[in-house]
Order: sequence, then structure tokens, then C-alpha cells
Amino acid sequence: GELERLTRRYTSEISILIGPERDIPAPDVGTNPQIMAWIMDTYSMMNGYSVPAVVTGKPIEIGGSKGRFGATGRGCVISAQLAAKHLGINSKHLGINEKETVAIQGFGNVGMISANLLAEEGCLVKAVSDSKGGVYNPKGLDISSLVTHKKETGSVVGFENAETITNAELLGLRCDLLVPAALEGQINEANARSIRARIIVEGANGPTTPEANEILCDNGIFIVPDILANSGGVVVSYLEWVQSKKGFFWDEGEVNDYLQKVMTSAFAEVLRISRAEEVDMRSAAHMLAVKRVADAMAIRGIYP
Amino acid sequence: GELERLTRRYTSEISILIGPERDIPAPDVGTNPQIMAWIMDTYSMMNGYSVPAVVTGKPIEIGGSKGRFGATGRGCVISAQLAAKHLGINSKHLGINEKETVAIQGFGNVGMISANLLAEEGCLVKAVSDSKGGVYNPKGLDISSLVTHKKETGSVVGFENAETITNAELLGLRCDLLVPAALEGQINEANARSIRARIIVEGANGPTTPEANEILCDNGIFIVPDILANSGGVVVSYLEWVQSKKGFFWDEGEVNDYLQKVMTSAFAEVLRISRAEEVDMRSAAHMLAVKRVADAMAIRGIYP
Amino acid sequence: GELERLTRRYTSEISILIGPERDIPAPDVGTNPQIMAWIMDTYSMMNGYSVPAVVTGKPIEIGGSKGRFGATGRGCVISAQLAAKHLGINSKHLGINEKETVAIQGFGNVGMISANLLAEEGCLVKAVSDSKGGVYNPKGLDISSLVTHKKETGSVVGFENAETITNAELLGLRCDLLVPAALEGQINEANARSIRARIIVEGANGPTTPEANEILCDNGIFIVPDILANSGGVVVSYLEWVQSKKGFFWDEGEVNDYLQKVMTSAFAEVLRISRAEEVDMRSAAHMLAVKRVADAMAIRGIYP
Amino acid sequence: GELERLTRRYTSEISILIGPERDIPAPDVGTNPQIMAWIMDTYSMMNGYSVPAVVTGKPIEIGGSKGRFGATGRGCVISAQLAAKHLGINSKHLGINEKETVAIQGFGNVGMISANLLAEEGCLVKAVSDSKGGVYNPKGLDISSLVTHKKETGSVVGFENAETITNAELLGLRCDLLVPAALEGQINEANARSIRARIIVEGANGPTTPEANEILCDNGIFIVPDILANSGGVVVSYLEWVQSKKGFFWDEGEVNDYLQKVMTSAFAEVLRISRAEEVDMRSAAHMLAVKRVADAMAIRGIYP
Amino acid sequence: GELERLTRRYTSEISILIGPERDIPAPDVGTNPQIMAWIMDTYSMMNGYSVPAVVTGKPIEIGGSKGRFGATGRGCVISAQLAAKHLGINSKHLGINEKETVAIQGFGNVGMISANLLAEEGCLVKAVSDSKGGVYNPKGLDISSLVTHKKETGSVVGFENAETITNAELLGLRCDLLVPAALEGQINEANARSIRARIIVEGANGPTTPEANEILCDNGIFIVPDILANSGGVVVSYLEWVQSKKGFFWDEGEVNDYLQKVMTSAFAEVLRISRAEEVDMRSAAHMLAVKRVADAMAIRGIYP
Amino acid sequence: GELERLTRRYTSEISILIGPERDIPAPDVGTNPQIMAWIMDTYSMMNGYSVPAVVTGKPIEIGGSKGRFGATGRGCVISAQLAAKHLGINSKHLGINEKETVAIQGFGNVGMISANLLAEEGCLVKAVSDSKGGVYNPKGLDISSLVTHKKETGSVVGFENAETITNAELLGLRCDLLVPAALEGQINEANARSIRARIIVEGANGPTTPEANEILCDNGIFIVPDILANSGGVVVSYLEWVQSKKGFFWDEGEVNDYLQKVMTSAFAEVLRISRAEEVDMRSAAHMLAVKRVADAMAIRGIYP
Repeated sequence: GELERLTRRYTSEISILIGPERDIPAPDVGTNPQIMAWIMDTYSMMNGYSVPAVVTGKPIEIGGSKGRFGATGRGCVISAQLAAKHLGINSKHLGINEKETVAIQGFGNVGMISANLLAEEGCLVKAVSDSKGGVYNPKGLDISSLVTHKKETGSVVGFENAETITNAELLGLRCDLLVPAALEGQINEANARSIRARIIVEGANGPTTPEANEILCDNGIFIVPDILANSGGVVVSYLEWVQSKKGFFWDEGEVNDYLQKVMTSAFAEVLRISRAEEVDMRSAAHMLAVKRVADAMAIRGIYP
Repeated sequence: GELERLTRRYTSEISILIGPERDIPAPDVGTNPQIMAWIMDTYSMMNGYSVPAVVTGKPIEIGGSKGRFGATGRGCVISAQLAAKHLGINSKHLGINEKETVAIQGFGNVGMISANLLAEEGCLVKAVSDSKGGVYNPKGLDISSLVTHKKETGSVVGFENAETITNAELLGLRCDLLVPAALEGQINEANARSIRARIIVEGANGPTTPEANEILCDNGIFIVPDILANSGGVVVSYLEWVQSKKGFFWDEGEVNDYLQKVMTSAFAEVLRISRAEEVDMRSAAHMLAVKRVADAMAIRGIYP
Repeated sequence: GELERLTRRYTSEISILIGPERDIPAPDVGTNPQIMAWIMDTYSMMNGYSVPAVVTGKPIEIGGSKGRFGATGRGCVISAQLAAKHLGINSKHLGINEKETVAIQGFGNVGMISANLLAEEGCLVKAVSDSKGGVYNPKGLDISSLVTHKKETGSVVGFENAETITNAELLGLRCDLLVPAALEGQINEANARSIRARIIVEGANGPTTPEANEILCDNGIFIVPDILANSGGVVVSYLEWVQSKKGFFWDEGEVNDYLQKVMTSAFAEVLRISRAEEVDMRSAAHMLAVKRVADAMAIRGIYP
Repeated sequence: GELERLTRRYTSEISILIGPERDIPAPDVGTNPQIMAWIMDTYSMMNGYSVPAVVTGKPIEIGGSKGRFGATGRGCVISAQLAAKHLGINSKHLGINEKETVAIQGFGNVGMISANLLAEEGCLVKAVSDSKGGVYNPKGLDISSLVTHKKETGSVVGFENAETITNAELLGLRCDLLVPAALEGQINEANARSIRARIIVEGANGPTTPEANEILCDNGIFIVPDILANSGGVVVSYLEWVQSKKGFFWDEGEVNDYLQKVMTSAFAEVLRISRAEEVDMRSAAHMLAVKRVADAMAIRGIYP
Repeated sequence: GELERLTRRYTSEISILIGPERDIPAPDVGTNPQIMAWIMDTYSMMNGYSVPAVVTGKPIEIGGSKGRFGATGRGCVISAQLAAKHLGINSKHLGINEKETVAIQGFGNVGMISANLLAEEGCLVKAVSDSKGGVYNPKGLDISSLVTHKKETGSVVGFENAETITNAELLGLRCDLLVPAALEGQINEANARSIRARIIVEGANGPTTPEANEILCDNGIFIVPDILANSGGVVVSYLEWVQSKKGFFWDEGEVNDYLQKVMTSAFAEVLRISRAEEVDMRSAAHMLAVKRVADAMAIRGIYP
Repeated sequence: GELERLTRRYTSEISILIGPERDIPAPDVGTNPQIMAWIMDTYSMMNGYSVPAVVTGKPIEIGGSKGRFGATGRGCVISAQLAAKHLGINSKHLGINEKETVAIQGFGNVGMISANLLAEEGCLVKAVSDSKGGVYNPKGLDISSLVTHKKETGSVVGFENAETITNAELLGLRCDLLVPAALEGQINEANARSIRARIIVEGANGPTTPEANEILCDNGIFIVPDILANSGGVVVSYLEWVQSKKGFFWDEGEVNDYLQKVMTSAFAEVLRISRAEEVDMRSAAHMLAVKRVADAMAIRGIYP
């Protein structure tokens, strides 16, 4: 009904601004693959032929990319592995040590997929939380059972074979790896000093306030900033555009390999700048991003 | 002469309906690569630059795909191998057993290439026929000599070191594999009960009538239906379009690998539906095809 | 200033003639990557979106291809290896024998990169020259030091641990491989008879006059003609266009692999014609080139 | 509801075939100005800006032409005047003579407007009919009252101050002018000999059968054939297209003047051919039409 | 410099929003014909050919319309004449009567041209003011001398053969016609009751506040509202677009005649609504404007 | 045959340079209306719809302008009338005086039509010549008979009721009006001093050499230069473009009226400059032409 009509009218209004070579809408808060499909269909009908490359985040049935659904979570795991390797930790054994934990705050798309992939890799995910609370098992949670529990009950809370834990307690656990994958500003001036993680991989957008960031850095915690850590979704959106444009589609393995390759290269480059400029990873990532745009603009020139 | 002028005029009339993003003509009965080249050239001259992706089936010299010529036959052989594997037969040894035969009805593009590829794989192709009659050698026919004989005499009939056999006799042979690659309706109510093949791979379009199909299924014969078995040509037409669009061309090995991959995946999916829905492969293939179109339409919606 | 304004005006005037599907400017004498960037930016601003595929030779930051800078030199080395293999020489050991030399005339982009790659392969580059003179070391020059020397002093002359040699002397050395990578007409009727190379790989355009060519052929010297030997730059320009068009970029290894593959195939085909038609490589290359264009034209037809 | 949705979908499907420079739909049986408006709006929304010239017969509010509603009737009256003048009758006084009548069969858009305009010119319209029957007043009908009567009762029948008359009687009246403006085939072999008109102006399409035509011609009746007589609507459709295309609109007087000019010129040319070739007006009109198309085709040539 | 560069860059950014069939920029406060010329030139160079219809208000040398400069003033005079005629005043003699005045507030483009044209018509313009003050001559001011004086001194103040008068006094004069052609809000609650004009023609935008409007209406003053009175400039902008689009240009007389025709028709229609709905001219004009847009939208429908 | 194929191929090659908004070919030496029709048809078929405005000089049947055939000659006559009026001669009576002549050199399209129109106006054309010689009748030649004679015999020579005269003698006649409408350079240093015309209207391109021009000016002869005098054809080509673009066609009277208006205005402006700058008409015309282009360029600016 109305949502479809509204989407189609809106698409018609912005149709001169979007296009495979112009702006390419991707889903964000409040939109989903079905809405992207309507945008694509409306734009296509206006052109008289299918133009799948005009949006990303489409359902696979009409030209979406395999591997896109889990891309952000997968990117977080890749980031964690690269950070671990950098710190000399065997990334296959994150959380294995008795005294250390892998803790994930948030159990939506990003948190759930991160937990799953980490568990598949052999890591022990010992603590997980969502908006209703958290669960903790020092021997590692059974993630696939937990996913089922979450789907059935709407929350991780109440999962058997696990202790209850608050979000605040989760953040304060002694960790190999902490993945804040819930809301903004969860790690802030009030709790930053209590955090005992070795690595933080920011699965959410802006989970750490600037003040907290300073404290964490002073405490020697290695942070993979959101702009890098959760970029997997954007990377695969780009791949979806490439595939739609050429009308040729990759299988999931190829998508994941490319994601691995791009994130590894980006991590390395940010790390290089971080060392060369003696700044933290967040500043280095921003420096790299600004430099790339600035370089391209300087080379192209301002015209007219 | 006239055929060229007619083709160019016709292209000019349909030029608003065709295009790399619209309908893309491919050769069928009565057209050949030269005609596709004229269509492409006419369309290109109207646009002011070369548009190779407007047709498929072009000669390789102007952007056609390697591997397209033999693609339908190669697809039949892949289908046969997958069917054999499914039935627990070593696909490398089809027809090797003394009492079993590989029989191919029709020795045009599809039949000839199928025979060749099967022979290269180590199978014994013991019986082959064309519109003038058939030949049979219980020790396996020498396919490359037979191809030469066909080219010189216009028929397989009269090939030395082989017995004469009628089309009807060929269809009734005890077979590992029967490939009807001639005309429509060759396997019908009249002869279906006499067929003793374990696998039928439909190289032709519609070689089996609906009545015959029922009889064959009842007799436990495994049929790879035409829509799946002879789709190799269409698959490579699609690859030709992809290559033309991006202006980058694959070598023959890459084309064949992709064909193998696509057909293997399609075979598996049809087989899965066949089992899940307890229907034969033909019905399963149709169910899959209709479902894909229906899913895409439901997701896109009807607009306006 | 003026060069940019002139480039942009010129681009505006030719804008109806160029385009990703029309003519695609590439840099030549007097143009450089910055100028290509301005052309690309002007054309893009006129269209309202970025059109990187309208030129090649762009800086990598705005869509240029990795591996393009060294492509011509790399192509020369590939040609040399293929020629050596054809003549039964172990291409890894060109110049290793005491009495034989690898000599390179010219130490610009092509000569320098050829020298470097040959040295990396284990060959001994014993003589190199530029417009100011040459250097010679019978034990092989240290190419990376020589490159540094050239960058610091503007010439290879004066390089320590090497004897001084004239250009004329360099051309007359007993060689496994001679790479003329300087100006046109360096090998001419006057000096052709003095040349003692087994293989000549023409890195420059037209380094050998027709008269000299005849003499060299009579003397059994195997020449890889410029049209083949120095085509690496054009090949990678083509790859840059492919990458820009699909918006997906290759790493340097992929570019180099493709270059190797294309040059190997072209060398083989030219060699095949050379033998079949009993002509030298240069004539064979021209015959192949003309045939390809003629075949395409015959198939497409003349229309209107 | 559905009619609008159907119209918009249909427009979307034919959108590559229509356009201000291609085919331009105009209303015919079963379509009306509202439907033309939907076609125009759908096409315009697909293009992103208003394209009023894509249809004719639009409502005036969105770019229709003034004077289009009455154009066919007005064209009939102009034809009648030209025919009268040709026969030496004072066209202002058609039907004035006691023994002569102006009779109009059909009182829809064409018949009603013709009657009105003739009355305004001073002619006496003495007989009018519609599908339910006719009315007759030898002193002339009061047309504006009759229009009111028709609008109120749905028929001319029952109009006061007039005698009742059948359609058959109307056709058989002694007439200066008979305007058949109802259905096809009203004047046929059965009644043609009874017709006593001096001039017939065919307001309907095909009101006269070929057999009747021959009889009428033999009896010296001057017929303005439908292709000429009722072309007023098409002429003003053309004017609507011209106005829509340039975005500049005429007032009703300008439209009517142009209509007068075009019909006068067409009448004269058909008359000239009729005399030169000694054929009736109908044949002359066809000869002129065919000649114009043939001349244009011969000059342009057949290409490709 | 910078203004030109800024204009061209801005044009480039909005180029997908403007166009002869889309939005068409026209000059307003802060822009002038030169700027419109730059917009037109930039847009044209981006398209590769001249597109004069993309803007209006261009200099005549490059496709502007004759008569555009004076169109707003001329429209005011036409409005005044129509209002006078409606009130039974001989519009040729406005201000002629000893006790009555024509007063014009503001002596910019609109005021000056209105004064000139009124004087040419035989009216006595007795009072004129600008931002520095006013002048008054009960026998009528010599407008062409006053124009010269204004051009030389920058103000009407100090004009010989005239008394000095304040803006407030000017507004309070007994008038046949008052033309407020200066700033917004000049006639407001504070001074409305002092106004003794019979006709007010709003040459400025919004010279009368809503409160003042009510007072004036109560006092029986006939107001031609700004939306109607000063629409001459917009009307001729439309004509400029029409001329640019068809590449055919009108002379000044034709432009002025069309302006006269359009304003006369608009005035009459507003007056008709004013009477029918028993509202003032301002409300009637708004009702007409809203109705036209609403009618067009209702007919076209909302789609998608 | 070949001319058509050549024209169509050529059109295809230049198709990106021509167009209704770009360059618009018009016929010149060696081309004729049929060739323009082929260009128009080829371009139209490439676009998929008719584009009559892409050329001028088309046959009227496919969108050419009425009045174009005679436009150059008519323009010459208008020029002559304006020149006469300027000199105080009654233009209706050119050549009427016993001692004065109207002489026309050349009897092709321009000369013949000029003669005809002058005769229709009541002037006495006493001398006419073509490439084979001239004829002279002091009482005025019967132009319509002369046209018939020319068509029958291919020359004016031999016309009865006229004396034979050489081209040289014709140029030397005492004249009101001399129209050189033949080849370039006919009036040169050798014969300029012998010319006794009061007015020269240059129907040909460049009939007067620069040296002759100076002599004629010194002798007080009033010359209407070619750029002005024979511009009638170009003016009507422009009108043909306007008509083709809007799809609305003028009758011959409208075309001629516009031609009269444009030439009158141009003559007046050139004359004004001639007086203001104290130069001859030729210099004034060039000054006007250069100024118009320069003004437009200055206003638009140079961009990019």
C-alpha cells in the first residue's frame, strides 16, 4: 500500500539525481531490500528497461549480491583477526585463554553474525548482550543455540547454560576482544576507565565517545574504528553495483574473498599511517580518507 | 545481396526495441552468425559507435564468444555426466560395459559435438544416426573418422567398420545413455515402451511427447529435460553478452568452466526440487523456472 | 594555468568525438597523466558524472591502472624471453655467457624498466647508454645503482665501476639481446652490418630502417618488431579502459599476468605466420594486423 | 480507478513508440480527453518534465487546443459552403428556398455543431434526426432550442413546433444540402435512388456505400467525401500538436481561420484533380492523398 | 572574474535541474542579463550547442526578447488603463482634471517606464518620488527631462520647475492613479486611511500590507494587485522562452501587442471572478491562480 | 545509384556534427534538393523519426519552404528598390527613362527571377546577357518570352525583337540599375571606369574586384554588396529551418513578406553605419557583421 506508493513517488522525484553513474541509494535505517526493489523497479520502468545498478541492497532474486547480508559482521571479524595478528595474538584462539573473553554487545545483524563467525573460527564467545540484558558462560556460549533462542524469545536473556549479566558488566569484562555492536555512545567517559579489553572492534557506528576514545588509547587498548571495522556492508554494496553494472554475478565465496582482500589492505594502510604519523587507528583512518579525496580533487582540478 | 539489405532494413525497423539493455537478438533457425553481424553493424552505424552487445551469436572476429559453437553439445555431455553421477554410474565409462550403449540420434551440431566430447572422455559411443539412417559398432564408433565421413558424404550412413541400423532400432537399444538430438517428437507413445535407456539427455527441443514422458518415467528412466539439457547455447549467449558489454573477452577454457559451473548448479537445484516435491526432473525444472520469474515479479511489483 | 585552460577548451571542442564507446585519448609525446586527468574531468563535468573510461593514462588516484607505468618495458622483456625460448636460449641467462652481452640503448622509461626486470630475472645487462653516452661492465652493471646514478646526474655516464662506451660501440657489441629503446632510425644502413646481436627487441618506435632490417634479416638476427615488442603500453591502456568501464580495479599482479598472456599469444601467432608465409616477424605482424581489420570489415560489411 | 491504472500501464508499455516526433495518440471511439490527459501525464512523469505534444485531444487546461471540440462540425460547414459556391448557390441561403431543405442525419457532436453553425450563417435547417427519429419544420427549426431539447430529453424527437419524420423520410427530402452525420452505410443501394439532395457532405465516416456512391454520382449529386468533409478534427489535432510543441497557444479565432484556410485549399485541390482526371470528388481525394505519400517516398528513397 | 566563475560553477551544479523543458532561470534581485548570458553559455557548452531557451532575461544580442526591459512598467500602464475604463474614466486623461493627480512612488525601471508611457498617452504625471524624496508640479512634470535629471544626479530631488514633496505627502495626494513602485509595505496601517487615490496599481511586490488593503477596500479604492499589475515582466519572459525555443524572433510591436492582449484577458477574468464571488481584485486573482493549478492537477492526476 | 550511396555514407560519417541545433547543411554548388532529401532521410532513419530541420533546401514535398527557389532573385530586387529609394529614384520606374537602362548580367536562377520581378513591377529591363552573349532592346525586353526562349535554346542569344550585345557592352551601358548575376570578378580594374550605372546590386558572389570597387565608389556609384544583396536565399533557408523545427508551414506570401522585412531592416542598418562611419556600403556591411559576432562572443565569454 502506502509505503510502496510513497517510495515510487519519491523515486520519480529524485530520478534525475540517481543512476548507475550518479548517486546510488543503499538501504539505511528505515529502509529494507523490498524498498530498494521498488526504487529499482520504478526507475527501471521510467527508463524502459531494467537498471539494477541504480540501487544496492536489493534482494538477490532481482540482482542483489550474495554475501551482502552478513558483510558487516564478517568485516568485523576480519578486523578482529587483523588486530589480533598485529598484537601477536593467534586470532584463531581469541578468548580461549581462561582469563580472557570475547564479548559482543548487541545481537542484531552485526553482533549475531560476528559471534557466529568467531565461533566457527574456534574462538570462545563468552559474553553477549542485547537491549534487554546479557548472558555469560566462561566456557563459551553455544552461539547457534543462542541464535535460535533469540529468534524464539526476542532476546538473549534467559538462555540456558549461561549466567545473567548486565550490559555494564559485559563492557567491563577482561577481554581479548570487545565488539560494541549496539548503539552510539555506549563507551563513554563514565565507563571508559573500567574497560579491560585488549582489542575493541567497533561494529556499531560511533560506539565510543571522543572522551572515552582518549582514555582507551591512554590505556593501550587497540581500537579498530567504526569507519574501518564496520565497512564490510559498504564494500559489498560496491560489489553489488559492480555486478549489477556488468550483469555478471559472483558466488558467495568470491564476494567473501574480495571483502577479505580489501579489508586486509585497508587495515594495513591505516596501520602504516598510524605508525608513521604516531596517531591512533581512528585518526589514521581519517587521515587516509581525507587524503584520498584531496588527492583526487587536486589532480582533477576545480572546474568550472 | 537481398538478404543483407532485408536484414538491415529489418534492424532499422526494430531498432527501438533492441539494445544491450533491452531485447538482444540471438540466432535461431534461418539465421547465422553473418546475419547477426549485419544486425550488429546496422545498429552500430545508427548509433555512431560499435555496440557489439546488441546481439549474440556473432562471429568471433567481431566480438563473438569463444566456445559458443560447441556449447549446446557440451552442455548435453555435462548433463549426462551429472545424471550418471546421480545414478551412481562412473560417468567416464558410459557405454563401456559390453551390454550397454551410448546412442545418439542426430548428428548435427549438437549430436556431433556430444559424440566427440563423450568419446574424448573415454565413453564408447556405439550407435549414431541421422535423417538418412544409423550406424552401430558394438566396440564403439571412431567418432573423428565418422565426422570426416559425414562431412564428405553428407550422412553417417555407409561408414565402414559399422553395421547399418535404423533410427527406430537405435532408439530401442539397451543404453546407458540415449541422446535424442534430432527432431521434435521422436520419442512418442508408439515407441516409448521399447526404450531401454537408463538416462535420456534431450539434446533436441521437445524430442519426447508428454505421453511418452509418462511411460518413460513409469519405467524408471532418468530424463534430463530439454530446458536443462540443451541450455548450453543460451548460457554462452549470455556470456557473450557479458563479454561484449565490458569489452573484455574470455578464452575458451574460462567459457567452458563457467558453463560447467552453471549447469552443475542448475542440475543440482532441479534435482533438489524433484526430490522435495516428488516430481520428475522436467516438472521440477518448470517449477524452478516459474518460481524465479514469479519471485522477481512479486518483489518488484506491478507498476504502473 | 594556460596548459590546463587550453586542455579543457580543447576537450570541450572534441567532446562529441570522444567517449567510452568512441575514441579514447591516451597520452603520447607532450601529454602526461595530469593532462589526461584534465580531459577526464572536463568531459565528466560536461556529462554531470564521472566518466573515467573516456581516457587512459590517468593517474591511479582517479582511476588509472596499476602496472601501466612499466608496461612497455615489461612487454619488451616478455618479448625478449619469448624470442630466447624460440631460439633455444634459456631466457633466464641472457648475457650470462662470458662472450655475450645484454645491451640496452636508451635509459628512459622503457630502457630503465627493461634493464631492471632483466636484472631481476638473473640476466646480466652489461651495456647501457643514453643520449650522453654509454657504460659497460663485462660482469654486469648494478642496475639499481645505475638508476640512482641516472636520477642524480641526469645520465648513465660517469657511473662508477663501469667503462665508458659510445652508442655506436654499444650497438656493435656481441650480444644475446640488444634492445634499442631510444630514437628512430638508430640502426640504419651505415651500421647494420656491424651488429652482432642474436635477438633485437625494438623498444623504441622504428629504431631500424627498412634497409637495415633487410641486412639484419640476411644476417640471421631475430628481430621482434616494434609493433609487437613495445605494445605493452597499449595493452595496459586497454586494460585501464576495461577497468574504468566496469568500475572494478585489478591489482598489479593481475595486470602483469594479463600482459604476459596477451603478449605470449600475440608472439606465437606472429611466429606462426612468419613460418607459414616464410617472412620475417615484422612482415608477419603486419600481415596479422591487416588481416584482423580486413576480416572484421568483411564480416560487418560496408554500410551505408 | 481501473481505467486510469490500465491507461497508465498501457502508456508505459508503448512509451518507446510514441513521442512528439514519433506516433502521437489522438482520441477515437472509447477514449476521451481525460484518458489523453492520463497518457500525457504518464509519459511526462517518465521523462521528468511535461511533454504535452505527445498526445492530442487533451483538455484545454493542460494544453489542448481551443476550437478542437467543434472542429469536425465546423469543417463540414466549410465543405458545404465551398460545394455550394462551386455549384453557384449562395451558401448563406442554403435551404432558404421554399422547396429546398437542409437536412442533417445525426445530432451528436458533428451534426449538432453543423446545424448550429449553418443556422448562424442564415441557412434554414429544416430537418434533423437522431437514432430515435427525426423532426421537420418547413420554416426552419430553431436549432438552439432543439439543442436544449436534445440535452434534456436525450433525443430530438418530441420537439415542439415540428413534425415528426423518419430517418428514411429525412434522407429522401428535396435538399440543397444533406449531411449524413450518423453511422456508416446509411446511404446504400436500397435508398440511394430516392435521394434528392444537390450536395451531400459526409460528416460521418463511410455513410455512403460504394454502390450508392455510383448511383448518386450518376444522378449528378455533388458529394464531399468523408476523407475531406470530416477532416476538421484531424486538422485541429495537428494544430494542437504544433501549439504544444512550441508552448504557445492560439485563440479560437486563429484556430478557426487556419481551419478555413486549410479546408479551402484542400477542397480546391481535390476539385482541380476531379476535373482534370474526370473523376468524382471521392476518387480525386484518394488520388491526391496517395500521390502525396508516394511523392515523399520517392524523394526520400528507401533506406536502408 | 569571480562572479563569472561562480556563476559558471553554479550552473554546472544545477545543470540537471534546468533546461528548456524543465526549470528556466530568469533574473531577479542580484542577477542581471550578463549573468543570464553566462548561465546560458555554460549550459550550452556542456551540451555542445547553443540552448538559448534555458534562461530568460538574456541580452538581445544572444537571443533576448525585444520589449522585455520595459515590460513590467508597460504592464502597469495597461493595468491602469483597464482599471480606469472599468471605473468609467477616460484612461487617456488620467490626472488631467485640475484636482486629480497621477502619482508614482519609486523611479526605478518600473516607475520610470510607467511615467514615460503615461505621459506619452497624454496623462499628467504630477508627482514622483524616489528613496531620496519627491517632486510635484500641479501642471504635470516633464518626464523626459526628469529622467535625464535622475540619470545625472541619481535622484528626482532637485528637479527644477517642481516643488519638493515627501514620500508621505505623495501617498496622500488626491489621485486618479497611484502607482506604488518602490519597496514592500509602503502602504500600511499607519497611512492607509490618508490615501485618496481612486485607483492603485501595484508596480512593486507587496507594497500594501494586508491591514492596509482592508482599509483601502473599505474606502472604495480600486486596487490592481501586484500579482496582476506587475506581471508584464514574467509575461515577456515567457515570450522570450517561446522565441528562443523556436529560433524565431518578434519585433517590439508584436511583443507589446501580445502583452496587451494577455493582460487585458487576465484583467477581465479577474474582474469577472471579483464580481461573481463578490471579493476584491486581489482575492479574485488568487482564486483564479489556485483554480488553474488545481484544475490541471486534477485532470492529470497524481502519479506515481 | 552511386551518388545516393555516397551521400548516405557521408551523412552517416558527419551525423554527430549535424543536427537541428548544430550545423545544418544547405545546398551549394554541386548539390541539389534531391541530395538534401537523402541527407535528411539518412539522418532521420538513424534517429528513428523524421528530422526535417537537419537540412535546408529540401524539396517542398518533404518539408522545404515555399518561396525558397526564387528567394535570392527576390532579395536582389528588394535591394534595388531600397537603393533606388535612398537615391530618390522612383523604384517602380527603374529604366523607364529613355536614357537609362536596367541591365542584368547572367540569366540563371538569380538573373532570371530578378528580371521577371523587375518587369512585373513596371521597370524596363533593356539588356540581359548570359555566358553566350547578350540581347538589348531600348524599349524593354519581353522577359517572359525571353525566359521561354532561354529554356528552348539554352541561351538568351538569338531572341527576336532585340539587338545582339556583348557582355562588355552590357556592363558599359548607361544604367539606372546594373545587376551582375553571373561569375566572380566580372567588374574589374580593366572595365570599372567604363561603368555608368547609378546602382549596382551584386547578385553574384564577388562580381566586383577590390580595385574595381574603389574606382566605382570614387565615381559615386551606389553598390549594394553581395553579402547584403544576394542574402535572400540564406534568409529563406533560415525560415525553412524555423518551419521544419516547429512543423508548421508558411504560404509563399508570408515567406516573401518576411524576406522583405528582414532585407529592409538590414539595408537600413548598413546604410546607417555607412553614413555614421563614412564608409561605403560594403565596408559597413562587414563592420555590422563582425560587430554582431563580436558582441555575442563578448557577452557569452570564452568558456572553458
